[in-house]
Amino acid sequence: MNNDSRRARPVILGQNQYGKAENRVVKITRDGDTHHIKDLNVSVALSGDLDDVHYSGSNANCLPTDTTKNTCFAFAKEYGIESAEQYGIHLARHFVDSQPSIHRARIRIEEYAWERISASDSNSQFIGADEVKHSFVRKGQETRVAQITYSAEGDGQAHFEVLSGLKDLTVMNSTNSEFWGYIKDKYTTLKEDYDRILATSLSTWWRHNWTSDEQRMPHWEKSYEQAKKHILQAFVETYSLSLQQTLYQMGTRVLNNRGEIDEIRFSAPNKHHFRQDLSFCGLDNEAKDGAVYYAADRPYGLIEATILREGSEARIPVDMTNL
Amino acid sequence: MNNDSRRARPVILGQNQYGKAENRVVKITRDGDTHHIKDLNVSVALSGDLDDVHYSGSNANCLPTDTTKNTCFAFAKEYGIESAEQYGIHLARHFVDSQPSIHRARIRIEEYAWERISASDSNSQFIGADEVKHSFVRKGQETRVAQITYSAEGDGQAHFEVLSGLKDLTVMNSTNSEFWGYIKDKYTTLKEDYDRILATSLSTWWRHNWTSDEQRMPHWEKSYEQAKKHILQAFVETYSLSLQQTLYQMGTRVLNNRGEIDEIRFSAPNKHHFRQDLSFCGLDNEAKDGAVYYAADRPYGLIEATILREGSEARIPVDMTNL
Amino acid sequence: MNNDSRRARPVILGQNQYGKAENRVVKITRDGDTHHIKDLNVSVALSGDLDDVHYSGSNANCLPTDTTKNTCFAFAKEYGIESAEQYGIHLARHFVDSQPSIHRARIRIEEYAWERISASDSNSQFIGADEVKHSFVRKGQETRVAQITYSAEGDGQAHFEVLSGLKDLTVMNSTNSEFWGYIKDKYTTLKEDYDRILATSLSTWWRHNWTSDEQRMPHWEKSYEQAKKHILQAFVETYSLSLQQTLYQMGTRVLNNRGEIDEIRFSAPNKHHFRQDLSFCGLDNEAKDGAVYYAADRPYGLIEATILREGSEARIPVDMTNL
Amino acid sequence: MNNDSRRARPVILGQNQYGKAENRVVKITRDGDTHHIKDLNVSVALSGDLDDVHYSGSNANCLPTDTTKNTCFAFAKEYGIESAEQYGIHLARHFVDSQPSIHRARIRIEEYAWERISASDSNSQFIGADEVKHSFVRKGQETRVAQITYSAEGDGQAHFEVLSGLKDLTVMNSTNSEFWGYIKDKYTTLKEDYDRILATSLSTWWRHNWTSDEQRMPHWEKSYEQAKKHILQAFVETYSLSLQQTLYQMGTRVLNNRGEIDEIRFSAPNKHHFRQDLSFCGLDNEAKDGAVYYAADRPYGLIEATILREGSEARIPVDMTNL
Repeated sequence: MNNDSRRARPVILGQNQYGKAENRVVKITRDGDTHHIKDLNVSVALSGDLDDVHYSGSNANCLPTDTTKNTCFAFAKEYGIESAEQYGIHLARHFVDSQPSIHRARIRIEEYAWERISASDSNSQFIGADEVKHSFVRKGQETRVAQITYSAEGDGQAHFEVLSGLKDLTVMNSTNSEFWGYIKDKYTTLKEDYDRILATSLSTWWRHNWTSDEQRMPHWEKSYEQAKKHILQAFVETYSLSLQQTLYQMGTRVLNNRGEIDEIRFSAPNKHHFRQDLSFCGLDNEAKDGAVYYAADRPYGLIEATILREGSEARIPVDMTNL
Repeated sequence: MNNDSRRARPVILGQNQYGKAENRVVKITRDGDTHHIKDLNVSVALSGDLDDVHYSGSNANCLPTDTTKNTCFAFAKEYGIESAEQYGIHLARHFVDSQPSIHRARIRIEEYAWERISASDSNSQFIGADEVKHSFVRKGQETRVAQITYSAEGDGQAHFEVLSGLKDLTVMNSTNSEFWGYIKDKYTTLKEDYDRILATSLSTWWRHNWTSDEQRMPHWEKSYEQAKKHILQAFVETYSLSLQQTLYQMGTRVLNNRGEIDEIRFSAPNKHHFRQDLSFCGLDNEAKDGAVYYAADRPYGLIEATILREGSEARIPVDMTNL
Repeated sequence: MNNDSRRARPVILGQNQYGKAENRVVKITRDGDTHHIKDLNVSVALSGDLDDVHYSGSNANCLPTDTTKNTCFAFAKEYGIESAEQYGIHLARHFVDSQPSIHRARIRIEEYAWERISASDSNSQFIGADEVKHSFVRKGQETRVAQITYSAEGDGQAHFEVLSGLKDLTVMNSTNSEFWGYIKDKYTTLKEDYDRILATSLSTWWRHNWTSDEQRMPHWEKSYEQAKKHILQAFVETYSLSLQQTLYQMGTRVLNNRGEIDEIRFSAPNKHHFRQDLSFCGLDNEAKDGAVYYAADRPYGLIEATILREGSEARIPVDMTNL
Repeated sequence: MNNDSRRARPVILGQNQYGKAENRVVKITRDGDTHHIKDLNVSVALSGDLDDVHYSGSNANCLPTDTTKNTCFAFAKEYGIESAEQYGIHLARHFVDSQPSIHRARIRIEEYAWERISASDSNSQFIGADEVKHSFVRKGQETRVAQITYSAEGDGQAHFEVLSGLKDLTVMNSTNSEFWGYIKDKYTTLKEDYDRILATSLSTWWRHNWTSDEQRMPHWEKSYEQAKKHILQAFVETYSLSLQQTLYQMGTRVLNNRGEIDEIRFSAPNKHHFRQDLSFCGLDNEAKDGAVYYAADRPYGLIEATILREGSEARIPVDMTNL
């Protein structure tokens, strides 16, 4: 078919969605003098009978993005935020169930952790228990993420999909990593290495097999904690011959220990730490003696993989861990 | 099925890929005294027979990411960079055709534009033609992107997929935009607006229908220029009743005018410019008189849509425009 | 003096200032159907009789930062924004003259440039003149900056200090740059280079000698344009033996041509473009033939210098160009 | 004096400095199987007899920035990194003492903290002590900073100035903060608040009074830890009527408890958490009941202050805490 005949074919609307992104919802809960924080960044994306808003600009089927924002704040007050996942389930269900034109709602959430300023950070003899109960320091380290999708499309039953995960968890093994035995072609200059630093900044999503109210809902907070624990544990325990191998061990350990999770995907930039050649000034710089490395920014190896339970559908999109 | 029986099921490896990301390749071409720049950020992702590197850490089938980096630089010298797409086609084909264990190569490229420092920027009477020929200023504005995938998986014929696009193209109509007639529910507070600013920072990818050497290859540089022109033209000409409508007009115009493109996807954050209420000090602030707005950061409406030629497959992933 | 006796000395308050930072003020002016944009990021910092707010938390002398924000928006409507400098002069004078407790006001402004979407970007035969008059694309490239300080401290006369400048103007000479003849010590490995790329991302501030209404005020828009022109011109014309030399030429040219400017300071990261060694695969990669370079991120040379008119006071702080 | 006569005055070189910035130096120390990390970002700035490099491009007095980079890595190996300050003192002294043309060296350092992956993060029964000894997770939270300057200018005695500090330490009190009693003018709309969130992302530098080898050198690691502890403690203990008051309490506590520190400067963006008005859907949202807030990005109040020991010179530049 040539391009002229192609051009004669009509143009149609494909997948589309809209909503308010990055609503910065912070909920304080007061339990007597002891306060608790939930600090979320919430993004809404709605799909449904939205052809007209594209074709003619008629907004008759369009719930404004501003309204989706208001709803995020109102639900945080009305129902609280038990967990990012639970809160997202409430929101997603609301948009689909309350609006005939909305058939699918996807709630994406980033969660920032805070920890109490403790007596050891400051000075136990000066700080009474009262004061510490409402003073926090942002934890830094990884950002927790969640994505809740509720679909009532077609004539099928409505169902949920819940993904959880984390990003920017930077880890390093300063030894017990090797890399050798690889293909050499005419463009290969890399030297084999039997004692290298392995460092990465993990981004990972995992998919729960909970999809409807008929199943027992996972304990989202505990599930997150345990999944993270198993990832770190696999990182610690794996004597690594490739970053791929380390990722596979992480995923396997999560799936073997957490029955509520069926699939996990990783994106792991290899944060290269190159041993600096110091021979110019007569210095040895061997790993075994404790070496000096330079931490490189770009380029970096990027290793991505999905690990899943046999018989499960692979549903986490390829680039999701790169968002 | 309960979680215990799930846990008994074996764990398997799903989609995986690896390569060196963000190789900053800059090629200067000298045409007598006149120099030309191609300034790229090139990311390689390879897939194939890579189970062992995950299962056991055996790297026998693994071309090191460092080698993929070297290849990017060597190809820029050996073959030049006619266009990001042409260069990516060379690279993708090379990795698959030269390595039995590699069945699919994806090359992602960002391209940064430079323009010559012109006589009008500086001072025509002082600058001779010679000097200007090698002096450049980075253009800023949008970043051009391209993704070339070459697959020889299964027993099918090897084929290419070429996506092109841009990101961070920030545009504004300071009038000719309205928003009204939408759903009102109990969470709605938004006022209808009959003269608002419409501003967005466009991110878009489009898919060419060229897939193999048997077809005539598009002129990639011209195709990009024209696609961008039609997007801007639709933005200028559309009297907008919703950002969705504007996106649809952009996509339609590209597909109607460029036969080599079958699909286009947009992600468009609504960069809100809210009219500042100045009644506190007795000032009117109506759009018709030239108003003062505050440019908000977060939250923002996020509008995403695919427009495609009827009969074409929708292949651009949902979140690709958010990368 | 030992530390115990030091600790006995009282603690006092030194320099302090406060205000609302990063007010994103956008003003549209309508001239018939033709619209104009001023897009600013305005930061206010006030000083004065503010000891009590620090010592006891008494806010009796404190104009709230929220009020300074409101004032920025109200002034944009009431007086328009002729230029960032003129607008800043209005604001700074207002805060000091209207509040007895405020003795000094510093207004810092970033300005983002927009250009009209032109007939050549889109398609002249389809776009009427009317539509183009309110459609803009953000220019990218450098950010223009200004800082206006108005001081009425002590018993001296009130006076202004106006700095203007730019940041993120990325320029490259692809030849006519050398680097050799430097000190060699035991840590030196760098090879001399007789044909290298010189690229930098300029950040620069210059100081006007206008300080009060008794002098004729510069034409701020023209002054900016001309200063930038001379900087670019010096970059183009200088055959460079060091980046320091290039900066000095830039500053000298500005001061020699712009009598309203007495001092200029540059911060110029040397954006290294290293020639890639391709000997591993038998390729030459000489500058004279048009070479392939890799653009490095970190580390980078950082060259900073002030150039000033003899007899003028050096008043631009050392790190101001690094903000 | 008019501008023509100004233009006749010669142009001279003012303050200037150069060096390699952002050297990412990572040192692993092996103590048997137990590894330790120092992860630094080191920037060198040198000054001295450098007129010629600016005037003519003669590099005879110029130690290349590349050599300063090599020196950073070599010193990390040769002398180790006991603390950022100690390492910076070595480097600064070296550049001045070894090069006749260099009279002043300033070393700026960012330090990133890592913590061991602990048995509680992972699983004590599976992880032996051996493995944990070389596995780390980047701590996130604040970045520690240091600046060491060594000057041998003029005929005075060479001396050091050592600044230490931190940035991006985000803290929140979810109550015990009020703001009222401020100036109201015609632009004021802010409501007084008797129970607000106080949150800020602290950036602070403090100056040690150690200046030469004749004094006893502070224990840099302990000094940092204690200064941070006192800052957090003051944040916890201060019932705040203004952010200014809180900063003053922080500074006072540091100076009163740490005799080695004479001056401290803060820059504290007021990270506004605004109580969301939910009256539109009939919900109360009072602080006392545990409220929902939206965390705003821009604009933000910015509060800056120096606190110093009486009789000490204020030497920390005004904008240093904003770098």
